[in-house]
Amino acid sequence: MFDPDSFGNFANRSSSKWRRFPEDVLPMHVAEMDFEVAQPIREKITEMTNRSDLGYTGPVPEVAEAFASFASDRWGWQIDKSQLKLATDVGVAAVEILRVLTKPGDQVLVNSPVYSSFYHWIEEVGAEVLDAPLKLVGDDWVLDLVGIEKAYRSGVKVHMLCSPQNPVGRVHTAKELTELSELAQEYSVTVVSDEIHAPLSWVPFTPYLALGEAAHKTGVTITSSSKAWNVAGLKAAFLITQHEQMRQRLRALPDAMHWRTSLIGAFAMASAFSDSGDWLDRTNLQIQENLTFFRHLVQTQLPKARLFSMESTYLVWVDLSGYRTANPQALLLSEGKVALVPGSDHAPDNSYGEFVRFNIASSQARILEAVQRMARVLEG
Amino acid sequence: MFDPDSFGNFANRSSSKWRRFPEDVLPMHVAEMDFEVAQPIREKITEMTNRSDLGYTGPVPEVAEAFASFASDRWGWQIDKSQLKLATDVGVAAVEILRVLTKPGDQVLVNSPVYSSFYHWIEEVGAEVLDAPLKLVGDDWVLDLVGIEKAYRSGVKVHMLCSPQNPVGRVHTAKELTELSELAQEYSVTVVSDEIHAPLSWVPFTPYLALGEAAHKTGVTITSSSKAWNVAGLKAAFLITQHEQMRQRLRALPDAMHWRTSLIGAFAMASAFSDSGDWLDRTNLQIQENLTFFRHLVQTQLPKARLFSMESTYLVWVDLSGYRTANPQALLLSEGKVALVPGSDHAPDNSYGEFVRFNIASSQARILEAVQRMARVLEG
Repeated sequence: MFDPDSFGNFANRSSSKWRRFPEDVLPMHVAEMDFEVAQPIREKITEMTNRSDLGYTGPVPEVAEAFASFASDRWGWQIDKSQLKLATDVGVAAVEILRVLTKPGDQVLVNSPVYSSFYHWIEEVGAEVLDAPLKLVGDDWVLDLVGIEKAYRSGVKVHMLCSPQNPVGRVHTAKELTELSELAQEYSVTVVSDEIHAPLSWVPFTPYLALGEAAHKTGVTITSSSKAWNVAGLKAAFLITQHEQMRQRLRALPDAMHWRTSLIGAFAMASAFSDSGDWLDRTNLQIQENLTFFRHLVQTQLPKARLFSMESTYLVWVDLSGYRTANPQALLLSEGKVALVPGSDHAPDNSYGEFVRFNIASSQARILEAVQRMARVLEG
Repeated sequence: MFDPDSFGNFANRSSSKWRRFPEDVLPMHVAEMDFEVAQPIREKITEMTNRSDLGYTGPVPEVAEAFASFASDRWGWQIDKSQLKLATDVGVAAVEILRVLTKPGDQVLVNSPVYSSFYHWIEEVGAEVLDAPLKLVGDDWVLDLVGIEKAYRSGVKVHMLCSPQNPVGRVHTAKELTELSELAQEYSVTVVSDEIHAPLSWVPFTPYLALGEAAHKTGVTITSSSKAWNVAGLKAAFLITQHEQMRQRLRALPDAMHWRTSLIGAFAMASAFSDSGDWLDRTNLQIQENLTFFRHLVQTQLPKARLFSMESTYLVWVDLSGYRTANPQALLLSEGKVALVPGSDHAPDNSYGEFVRFNIASSQARILEAVQRMARVLEG
């Protein structure tokens, strides 16, 4: 039907990944995998479509049931299923939470480098970004708890945490997150923990809300199956709290969040968490294999590039400053016909301009072609 | 596979219609049809699902192309395709437009009885509802242009127009809408025209933005295929403007509206407008047949009920005040096991409490059963 090793639009897909740039550009930018979506998810959508079951989203207890089993099996986290609320996507959940918890002009903390949409969500509600950047310790990008406490003390209302962290692939440790939750409680900061990459972790992942009282009182998690199971276009996600006090603080969220969630997206999400664990395990192995392959290629063909430790995600943070090119992403796009996400998208102050984010959830043939194109431009 | 004339969840659907109330309740409330979804739409979804084409929504020019042909063929409206923007649903489009055009405390005009979500959208952005109710002229519910001008003069910022009007099924005439557009221009009011029911009209429908300069300068239309083609759970809609000035006024809309739209929803919408016109024509005939059937049943079994003229939609506005029951919807639900939408949901001041909205997009067997249950409760 199609050649997964081809360099063009191998499966005739119509998503942003394949339509944003001209056909001769190899798309390694947006967080979409080239792998096939898990069969149980596709079967669920087809079955509902055959039944014309495409109406308004009503109660879907299947999502909480499926996520409860998944969270318990994988992370030992026993959720309170009654505190889960559907939302169109993680961005909508974040924006609606920020609307409830902040006023225009309030400060929201992030830890750069972090997912570029965080900045847009904060801007959308009229709040201000405060940054406590990650620290580079050896090859690990870690939370700077001293910088975070300083920010908390200065009066931030909300901390947008990315856990695991996109684009560096760091899985924050239970110890770090426990300390964070205690700080959040001390300074009355709400931690919005974006855990959309969590199922893509290959070291033990700690959900923020699995950490006990201080986390329960301060935290709300936003997540979805959309990233790990590659179904961003279905538009279904959820937020979850674990303390009555936090649930009450969020009671002003619009009821309509629920209706704005796709019905087939919600059922696909249930199917992902309940029936598509094998697919996830195979995908995580493939991502780790691709990471090894990518590291080897970079070492041999882009020797001045620097990679870092990774414990999660298929989005690799690549330091190209050794090539002394002000905007390598633009150069690689125009000269090399490879689309990457510019590092500067991940910081509030245009730092990391010499970094790029590279998507390795692709065939090794396409990864090889992309690195070769990058090497032709940067190494000559 | 299933019996369309059964009274239960005949197709094992999982949408709100079938899950909101217990199984013994006949659901004639929410705007969802019991008919099968058009084959081309279902094929498009299945084809994309088979291809794992479920990623982020990129450019989908197919939507504007399909809507342009549909609007031209059906209504003689030549759209400017470049002024179409995707949104999750019509509610999201409305709320985002209201956020741009109003400040908290500003007044937004509605014409009751009107779709209940209008009140929620206005509340969501912190604006205030002002009402210029429809006038009942004979059996027609028509816009009160004198009341509207009075409201415009008092300083409303936005007029949320429902065209055709849910729940009365009125298709506002070109003359009425032209006069409205001139008033809007004179008093600098923006008309947000919700035209989601337009394809379900069986008299000539006039798009607000087909009326020329005054309408172009004052109007933005929000619509979707979701209502007429029965795919509310897919989450795709759009807004469209036709004047550079209005486009500029709405440039503060968040870019993320686009990404928050479902990819398969967007392509299903294109398929609805371009390939599913025959299905629509058959459905409109079926709705008119069902309306005739319903009128006959009401006349013979609920003689004190009053129905009105209808030119569009499958949502029938029923006046039950002849039965002198304060809240007939609650009584019919508890005693008759028929779910209807209470009339009071359609007004800002709990008027129309003795009305109900009845969904006739069902099998005649279910319509008959519902009217019989209503008659047992009301006629004894």
